[in-house]
Amino acid sequence: MKKVEHIGIAVKDLASANDLFTRLFNQPYYKQEELVSEGVSTSFFKIGDTKIELLEATDENSPIAKFIEKRGEGIHHIAFEVEDIDAEMERLQAEGFQLINQRPKNGVDNKRICFLHPKTTNGILIELCQEKAK
Amino acid sequence: MKKVEHIGIAVKDLASANDLFTRLFNQPYYKQEELVSEGVSTSFFKIGDTKIELLEATDENSPIAKFIEKRGEGIHHIAFEVEDIDAEMERLQAEGFQLINQRPKNGVDNKRICFLHPKTTNGILIELCQEKAK
Repeated sequence: MKKVEHIGIAVKDLASANDLFTRLFNQPYYKQEELVSEGVSTSFFKIGDTKIELLEATDENSPIAKFIEKRGEGIHHIAFEVEDIDAEMERLQAEGFQLINQRPKNGVDNKRICFLHPKTTNGILIELCQEKAK
Repeated sequence: MKKVEHIGIAVKDLASANDLFTRLFNQPYYKQEELVSEGVSTSFFKIGDTKIELLEATDENSPIAKFIEKRGEGIHHIAFEVEDIDAEMERLQAEGFQLINQRPKNGVDNKRICFLHPKTTNGILIELCQEKAK
């Protein structure tokens, strides 16, 4: 794993969270993006080498809506950038970690992604991500 | 804020968590440190420019013990490195964020630290930290 690519934060209302995190970080978000297949609308801040991704549910069946219903707003996942997502998925599965996605899927921010089940990672939802070739 | 200095993860048993995260990150932790005043024992991994800090409670009144009792194991806090912690605390307080510590206190890893209350930061426990002069 190369670095903490981003930290995903579940929020109820993206507009008011954008305002709050702008004041917190003393800088505005630099982009917004919607991922219809996941039912999320996102915005991105950058602190050093790591992005902070705010996630708002756009429909009630979105994983983000379910997360907030169960746990409230807060940190949803940590994403680690990997060199070769297919090889890393294979390595982790062999180590006993449970993959939520058996194949990488498309995420926002031009990424191929895969999640690891929190049951096997000390309660943390971990995302592996790799930038797609352009 | 300069970067995500570390992500703090609450664990029940440091020895078994060290083993799990060693397999997850495919590398061993590089140091362990105990902070008696906070009732925690810690270990550190490094991924890119960010540290992952595992935190085990060493007594039942430790904030980590209370966190695990309430929420289970998982992400406990995110720490952002700042240039000048006193100035940043003043700025954030003026912006309406609630400080848990009115003055910086001593943390592990040679740092002066201060926490922001999750009630004012979208449910996230945020630590500000600054390396102490050597």
